[in-house]
Amino acid sequence: MSLEVNARLSQIARHEGVQGVLVISHEGIVIKSYNIMDEETINHYAYISLQLAKKAKEIINDLAEADLEVLRMKSGEMEYVLSFEHDYVLLAVYKQTKL
Amino acid sequence: MSLEVNARLSQIARHEGVQGVLVISHEGIVIKSYNIMDEETINHYAYISLQLAKKAKEIINDLAEADLEVLRMKSGEMEYVLSFEHDYVLLAVYKQTKL
Repeated sequence: MSLEVNARLSQIARHEGVQGVLVISHEGIVIKSYNIMDEETINHYAYISLQLAKKAKEIINDLAEADLEVLRMKSGEMEYVLSFEHDYVLLAVYKQTKL
Repeated sequence: MSLEVNARLSQIARHEGVQGVLVISHEGIVIKSYNIMDEETINHYAYISLQLAKKAKEIINDLAEADLEVLRMKSGEMEYVLSFEHDYVLLAVYKQTKL
């Protein structure tokens, strides 16, 4: 898995406006992080990402009997993107750069 | 509120790929619906949209001490977009049209 995770991480790290990326296992273990340094923030992001992921997946299963692939939340300049890969959940945090 | 809601509804109804729109009060009452006919689907969508909205708002408040504006969920060809207006929540259901 780690080759694929590294490739995915570096791909996203090149996106415009990315502030940080977390790769989280479905059990909530942080596999990799990019540009998010302190432990507390990492664990905090991981915990709440999984909480939301669980809820959103339930709802999409309920709504459409399908799998949730991507969840995006916009709040002011920030955007939080959760993408659901087979073995892990990826959280990317973006800051709007266009003026 | 209804003038604004009607304007917003007709604006979204013209978007490409839109399958249906619901305007839901923060208490879960369906104020308006577009292209979603049967009562059961309407109430079902409204109920689960508010459940998710509540969870996502908590999380964004926790993450960024800011207000959640838009939440998008992609699943296969479908996309569910929840936008949080002052007096109501708006759910728009889209089907990808580009081949």
